[in-house]
Amino acid sequence: MSTPNKFSAQLTEDGKLRHLLRLEGLSREFITHLLDRAESYQRPAGDTPARDTILQGHTVANLFFEPSTRTRASFELAAKRLSADVLNLDVNMSSRIKGESLLDTIYTLQAMQVDIFVVRDASAGIPDFISSNVQSQVSVLNAGESDVAHPTQGLLDLLTIRQNKQTLDGLTVTIIGDIAHSRVARSVSRGLTIMGDNEIRLVAPQGLTPDMGNYPGAQFTHDINAAIEGADVVMALRIQRERIKEKSSLMTNHEYLQYFGLTEERIALAKPDAIIMHPGPMNRDVEIAGAVADGPQSVITQQVRNGLAIRMAVLAAVMESR
Amino acid sequence: MSTPNKFSAQLTEDGKLRHLLRLEGLSREFITHLLDRAESYQRPAGDTPARDTILQGHTVANLFFEPSTRTRASFELAAKRLSADVLNLDVNMSSRIKGESLLDTIYTLQAMQVDIFVVRDASAGIPDFISSNVQSQVSVLNAGESDVAHPTQGLLDLLTIRQNKQTLDGLTVTIIGDIAHSRVARSVSRGLTIMGDNEIRLVAPQGLTPDMGNYPGAQFTHDINAAIEGADVVMALRIQRERIKEKSSLMTNHEYLQYFGLTEERIALAKPDAIIMHPGPMNRDVEIAGAVADGPQSVITQQVRNGLAIRMAVLAAVMESR
Amino acid sequence: MSTPNKFSAQLTEDGKLRHLLRLEGLSREFITHLLDRAESYQRPAGDTPARDTILQGHTVANLFFEPSTRTRASFELAAKRLSADVLNLDVNMSSRIKGESLLDTIYTLQAMQVDIFVVRDASAGIPDFISSNVQSQVSVLNAGESDVAHPTQGLLDLLTIRQNKQTLDGLTVTIIGDIAHSRVARSVSRGLTIMGDNEIRLVAPQGLTPDMGNYPGAQFTHDINAAIEGADVVMALRIQRERIKEKSSLMTNHEYLQYFGLTEERIALAKPDAIIMHPGPMNRDVEIAGAVADGPQSVITQQVRNGLAIRMAVLAAVMESR
Repeated sequence: MSTPNKFSAQLTEDGKLRHLLRLEGLSREFITHLLDRAESYQRPAGDTPARDTILQGHTVANLFFEPSTRTRASFELAAKRLSADVLNLDVNMSSRIKGESLLDTIYTLQAMQVDIFVVRDASAGIPDFISSNVQSQVSVLNAGESDVAHPTQGLLDLLTIRQNKQTLDGLTVTIIGDIAHSRVARSVSRGLTIMGDNEIRLVAPQGLTPDMGNYPGAQFTHDINAAIEGADVVMALRIQRERIKEKSSLMTNHEYLQYFGLTEERIALAKPDAIIMHPGPMNRDVEIAGAVADGPQSVITQQVRNGLAIRMAVLAAVMESR
Repeated sequence: MSTPNKFSAQLTEDGKLRHLLRLEGLSREFITHLLDRAESYQRPAGDTPARDTILQGHTVANLFFEPSTRTRASFELAAKRLSADVLNLDVNMSSRIKGESLLDTIYTLQAMQVDIFVVRDASAGIPDFISSNVQSQVSVLNAGESDVAHPTQGLLDLLTIRQNKQTLDGLTVTIIGDIAHSRVARSVSRGLTIMGDNEIRLVAPQGLTPDMGNYPGAQFTHDINAAIEGADVVMALRIQRERIKEKSSLMTNHEYLQYFGLTEERIALAKPDAIIMHPGPMNRDVEIAGAVADGPQSVITQQVRNGLAIRMAVLAAVMESR
Repeated sequence: MSTPNKFSAQLTEDGKLRHLLRLEGLSREFITHLLDRAESYQRPAGDTPARDTILQGHTVANLFFEPSTRTRASFELAAKRLSADVLNLDVNMSSRIKGESLLDTIYTLQAMQVDIFVVRDASAGIPDFISSNVQSQVSVLNAGESDVAHPTQGLLDLLTIRQNKQTLDGLTVTIIGDIAHSRVARSVSRGLTIMGDNEIRLVAPQGLTPDMGNYPGAQFTHDINAAIEGADVVMALRIQRERIKEKSSLMTNHEYLQYFGLTEERIALAKPDAIIMHPGPMNRDVEIAGAVADGPQSVITQQVRNGLAIRMAVLAAVMESR
């Protein structure tokens, strides 16, 4: 992941989006274009959702090797509203029973003229591996890859911040939680670095300190209060209870909230107009107090709404690269 | 569930159907309108099914927390034949793994512009809980709620009776089985009380006596033969083997059929033109003899057919309430 | 399965395809017509897939009692590209929990106006049983039946051979593997016998000798090298590891490849322009060497592509028989 060539593998020679594997390698202009396009697909709540026929006659396969309600539903509805045929494959329950290799599954679906693979997997490198093996008319979208990348999440976070702050430059963004295992933190952090001169502050409990090589330009601290002070954006990450237990076995949910959770007292340290974000699904009253999640500064629902629009924009963009 | 206000929560101020949570609170005229509309969606077997574009561009999410082939398939096909996009969510296998709260799941899907939630759950109160938390353009349909309500089943039973008896007034209807745990019995019983002056006779084995407060206007007996005598409609309920075992541990399937099952001898006690109903799925030769299920008085298949038409009518009705 | 009447049950009186249960009983002309029709649905890779509206307004139910990624996906996409509504039913997880009988499930779905049942089951006789119980406007397609039949697989194999050899007559076809338990071998073997005067050579390990009564006109040997010599077509079957273990407990994967696998050395015994087939999913380096599967003579991907076209042709044909 260190050469520009590797990064640009997701773009065609004339700069169109063939795959979306990560935000690294995308330009500020290109991301701006994706965010604008996503906004063009948004409608007020209660209106009929935006539709487009750009994927009519084309097939999107959701290959989710990790369970996910919201991301799968978001991609499925995005594809359907662009008029695609959608194939949902729960690969755990069928071919993996028979020991079929991943690549044979991909070749099989490709032979059925699947145009776009939406892939979520707990192992690192799977989206890259697939994208480097498909035919030239096929696109791969990373829908969550181990602790490495979750680019559509990063884009929806950028869109949400832009809609609330009217800029993606000069902001102070604080991200709190299990940074060490978070594809969400990595993608949004990378996106913020591309989009402008932003101050990114990362906070994690003792045992969950990240490899800062994955966060160029960001700062790390264990002091949550200092990290929130004066922030424009405060994002809590989902905590994996398994990992809390393992790493700091004495911390209960209540203690986690007390020491690392977003409480009302704590967000009062941020700027008065700071927004509160969470990628979902939330553990209420663990990493975020229920009152904060539902409070006036929370933009969590807006993140979900933007997620669908971003996925429509990305699906449309890869279709246009053909 | 005792005040008219509570009952009317499913209607808009101008009397349109916003949610369908139970039959209580619906007027005779309104139910008649739903049955008529359902009939307008029926076509002879072999003809192409009726279609409508009323849900075009809209999204229906099936949230089934209890497994169900027939009810889920019925709602799914009803929605597709009205041109909706359909999202099937098996919540056990995805978000509940991650401990996401029910309400967060609903808010998430609502932010994706899901218009109608079809909800089935083994706990009482879930459809009401959801309906009181969604935005004003979103509707909730109860597809089976614990032992409390199953309103589309009640409506399809009413339609089936009306088609065969040409009236929903002045009938004697006998319902046999595990009345104490039956959302089906409660919904059809309530519907019959709304629609006319009907005699409703409930029969259950010793250990399964219902709380008659849930069955206003109905009579209860343990004497199955007396209850069937002279009936216009005889409905057997599905028996949950677990419950038979627990309550009356000595009764085998054969004994259940003998003492509480619909046998040919027993249905001869009803009126000669009585119809035989069962909500399905059947335990053949337990609560109903195979020969009765397949016999000339059985309208069980017609119930299934009517179920799809009723679900189309209800989906169309809530869409028009917006 | 011995009388012409039984065989012709899948055809209407005027010779149209009502059900597809097996290839026995289909004429050379009829199969040729299906292969031609399938080819009419093929498009070059990268083009938009062929679409048709012949199933518009109709409903296809996939009843898969055995897990399958590729066959289910193939039927699902075939149906969608013909504009059908598709219902996927994983029967293990819902109605079978409640002990609903198979026939009641079918009657239920039929009452919902399902037009075509695509059935896959590990038990012999299920597709026949269903087809003899449905209404006259309903069709049943066998998508894999125990070790008995897999007719769409047989048809796609015939199409693949015809596309490569420009004939289905006078060919030498070698099939290697667990012939005794292979519905694939039985269907393609039957198809080759119908289509022309072909030499069919079957090869299996010691414990997996087939009942040759199921393979009229074919020859059997344990000598794999002799069987491959001079062949036009060499097909490896998927080996079920469970069965190898049971029958010849000392054979490792590596030994299986050595004694019964398609290696590069071994396929050099066939004609220079021989094609290599496998129904998938493959156990690479067990029944087929990876280099052979990916080599220039392999037509395995073409088989998958043809599978989708064949399923479209069969779905369209049964719809036209109505």
